[in-house]
This record gives sequence, C-alpha cells and structure tokens, in this order.
Amino acid sequence: MNLATATPSEVRQLIRKGEIDAQTSGMCNGYAQANMAVLPKDLAFDFLLFTQRNKKPCPVLDVTEVGSPVPKLVAPTADLRHDIPRYRIYRHGELTDEVTDVEKYWRDDLVAFLLGCSFSFEGPMLEAGLEVRHITDQHNVPMYKTNIECIPAGVFHGPMVVSMRPMKPADAIRAVQITTRMPFVHGAPIHIGDPEAIGIKDIDKPNFGERSEIKPGEIPVFWACGVTPQAVAMAVKPEFMITHAPGYMFITDVLNAELSIM
Amino acid sequence: MNLATATPSEVRQLIRKGEIDAQTSGMCNGYAQANMAVLPKDLAFDFLLFTQRNKKPCPVLDVTEVGSPVPKLVAPTADLRHDIPRYRIYRHGELTDEVTDVEKYWRDDLVAFLLGCSFSFEGPMLEAGLEVRHITDQHNVPMYKTNIECIPAGVFHGPMVVSMRPMKPADAIRAVQITTRMPFVHGAPIHIGDPEAIGIKDIDKPNFGERSEIKPGEIPVFWACGVTPQAVAMAVKPEFMITHAPGYMFITDVLNAELSIM
Repeated sequence: MNLATATPSEVRQLIRKGEIDAQTSGMCNGYAQANMAVLPKDLAFDFLLFTQRNKKPCPVLDVTEVGSPVPKLVAPTADLRHDIPRYRIYRHGELTDEVTDVEKYWRDDLVAFLLGCSFSFEGPMLEAGLEVRHITDQHNVPMYKTNIECIPAGVFHGPMVVSMRPMKPADAIRAVQITTRMPFVHGAPIHIGDPEAIGIKDIDKPNFGERSEIKPGEIPVFWACGVTPQAVAMAVKPEFMITHAPGYMFITDVLNAELSIM
Repeated sequence: MNLATATPSEVRQLIRKGEIDAQTSGMCNGYAQANMAVLPKDLAFDFLLFTQRNKKPCPVLDVTEVGSPVPKLVAPTADLRHDIPRYRIYRHGELTDEVTDVEKYWRDDLVAFLLGCSFSFEGPMLEAGLEVRHITDQHNVPMYKTNIECIPAGVFHGPMVVSMRPMKPADAIRAVQITTRMPFVHGAPIHIGDPEAIGIKDIDKPNFGERSEIKPGEIPVFWACGVTPQAVAMAVKPEFMITHAPGYMFITDVLNAELSIM
C-alpha cells in the first residue's frame, strides 16, 4: 500500500494491527494530522479553556466525551487507544512508558484533546510554490520558547512555543496570506524578523526540533506551535497524562482544505 | 454624554450606577458587544465543549474563571454582576426574575460565558455600503430555528438558530467576503436562498425578532446566530442560569476590527 495516497482509515487500520510503527509525516496526503493530549476530567475544563483563550497555539480539532476514545467529529470510526503508532505515558509529569497501544492505560475519566498541527498549512504553502526549508532539508522544524506568555486558564500557564520557517520577504508575505486562510490551524504568523523581539536569544539553537539554515536575504517567520499546549499541560505535572510520541501523529478524516476558510 | 461615541468603560460605569437602563444597540460604536450566559461549574465543561464544537453559532469572546465576575480578556475593569443594563434569572429553565444587577444572585460556582454577536459584522457591512434591512427599517433582526442540528456535547444539544438579512445577489457575495474575514464572530453565512432547505417553513414568521421585508430580486442570507447557545442551555433546564435580557448586551473593550483576521 502506498501510505502517501492511502485513506486515513486504511492507514489507521494498519496502525491498529501493529503493522505501522513509524512517524506519520507524508502519510495520507491532504488530510489533517493531529497532536493528542489526554488528561483526567478534573483538568479538562481548565485545559479546554486554555485552548479557547490561546487559539493560535492550541487549534482544537476535537475533544472526546469523558471516557470515550472515539473522536466523533474528525474520525468517527477511529479509536484513540489503538490508532496512533506510538504513545507516551506520563505520571506526575515524568515520562514512564512509550508504547504502541494504550488500551490497558485507558480510564473512564479521561478526555482526549486533538490539536491541529502545522502540516496542515505546509501543504498549501508547497502547492503555492513556496519552499519550506525543513522539508527541503529533511529535518524537523525548529521550535523555540518565546517570552510571549500565553493567557493562563485555571492551573495552566506558560510561554508560547513557536515554529520557524526562513523565507524571502515576498514569500513571507504570501505565507501570511495563505495561513490567514487557516485561522483554525495556527493562522497567520505571530512574528516576522528579529528573533530577540520575542525572546529568542540564538536562532541557531532551537529548544525543540532542529536548526534551519537562514540564507542571505531571508527572514525568519514564526508561527504559534502546537507543542505549546503539551508543554503547558506537562508543566502542571498532572497525575496522569497520555500524549502521542513526537512525530507519531493521529491521522484524521478531515481534509486540510476543509480547515481553510477560503 | 454621547453614548454612541463614549468608551465602553464610560458606558459600563453609567450602567453600573443605574443611570442607563436601555438596549445597548448603537452604544460605543466600533466596539464588540456580547451575549452572556452564566452557568454553574458542573455544566461549564459541557457548555464550553458545545461552543468549541459549534463555533459558528457560538463565538466565545471570553469565559470567566470559576466564581469570578471579571471578564479578564475582553474587559478587565468590568464586573459582570453590575455592568449589563438588564439581566434574566432562570431556575430549572423558568424565567423567575428580570433585574438590573445580579450581585445578590452571584455564587462561587458560577462561570460566565460571553459570546459574540452579529453587531460585530453589521458595522463592517454598513461601512462597505451594504444595506442591512432591519437596521434601515429599525426593527429586530429576524431569527429562525432550522433543521440543522448542532453537534451535541454532553447534555447540550439542539437546532441551530440563524439570523436572516435580505440582499441583492451582488451584495450577498460581498457580505460573504466581509463575514469570512470574521471567523471568530459567526463567520460566513451558513445558507443562501431557499429557506425550506434549512427547515424554515415561513420566512415571514421568524421564531425570534421581527420579519424583514424581502424585496423583488433579493435573496435571504442566513448566518448562524448567537441565540443558539442560549436556547440550547435553556433546553437543559439548568438548576440556575443568568443571561442578559434580549438587546441589553455586555459592551466589551474589544474593537470589532480586532475580531477580523484581515
């Protein structure tokens, strides 16, 4: 099976059977992939409120009913206990397990949050003829903690994490237009140019991911990043939390094009 | 004081002192006004999730911390117990009081939701030279229950309520463009043309508000309406609930222009 052109439900079946244990980048072209954070119900209201208050870094695609592993809106035939290739289990903020199935960890009081990711706007950028440096150079996108504080909600608070793509100024302008069309998946950039203005001391030393080369005449363009809500959730050291493993995303039935307002 | 050009905090002070007891339409031009629904904390997660799943009819502008009457994001100097000209108190779904201050009703377990309203996109329409019929004719916008079911969340479910504005086709197209720019305040229309296609039997008999005349050559244009979440909340007959009285809105410090993505 060609995983790039397979449907999300076909690929999720292979993941569920244990036949895929790989990062999901490049699978099911055109379909939105999602970050997952699973928290106990007693933290769910504050976390949902945090995402509501910080829409740019926290683009909610779906939230399950308490105890249900089924993301009814974005993939009604999926089961979040089996259909992600790799999971991480955290207890009191400590990573305790990395597993390929979380059925035995599931509890009746858990709520799963699926959060959009920048794959959704990188497709339209490539289609528009823009270069996305970390895709060209085949490495992870560089991500940075900033000095921009998210709006707190209940117990959750912390700095915004951003991803960076170097671009020629004309391409940066086009990228603003393209991502403005996607207000529900990070939306327009939050900053262009001087990294120090948002508290980034060394652009060559990202906090997460890998360095991207900034060529002469290019400027760095910064988008709010979906790592933000996970970092914020982790900082609270919740008694129990499940996430996807980095790069091993949940593949939804939603087309990226459906997440665009025009 | 000219209430049309006064600042939101000036007008809220007059409301707080009891010197204004009137509908807020036309006050503080350019600033977003909000619907309010206050619910006990035990319903707040489901209601927040309902708004998240039904963004078009439920454009959340702010949600207070549990027990706090201060909408920190949209009006940090305001107090929701005093700063709305008229409130309604519901017990088990029954309207029990209509009052001008709710301090004596406030409880430590209450969460206030402020939801955007269509005033925010009618300003930009008028500025673009479009006629808004119910403003021309000085009556309330006509609103209809549709056969479009909202996506349920926990105990909350119900049909989408829409508002209708009659327009010439060219103006309808322009109105789609203008409201597309405001995805966080209802966004683009949900339907154009045949009312029966969304379950409206008689366009001359709105369920709420008043009839608008549809002139020859005009088509009805339908937007998701902020009455939806109130109707949905009411249907659950919550033990206790506070809302604004219809037309007596909360005036925020947020410019409508800030709610536009371009």
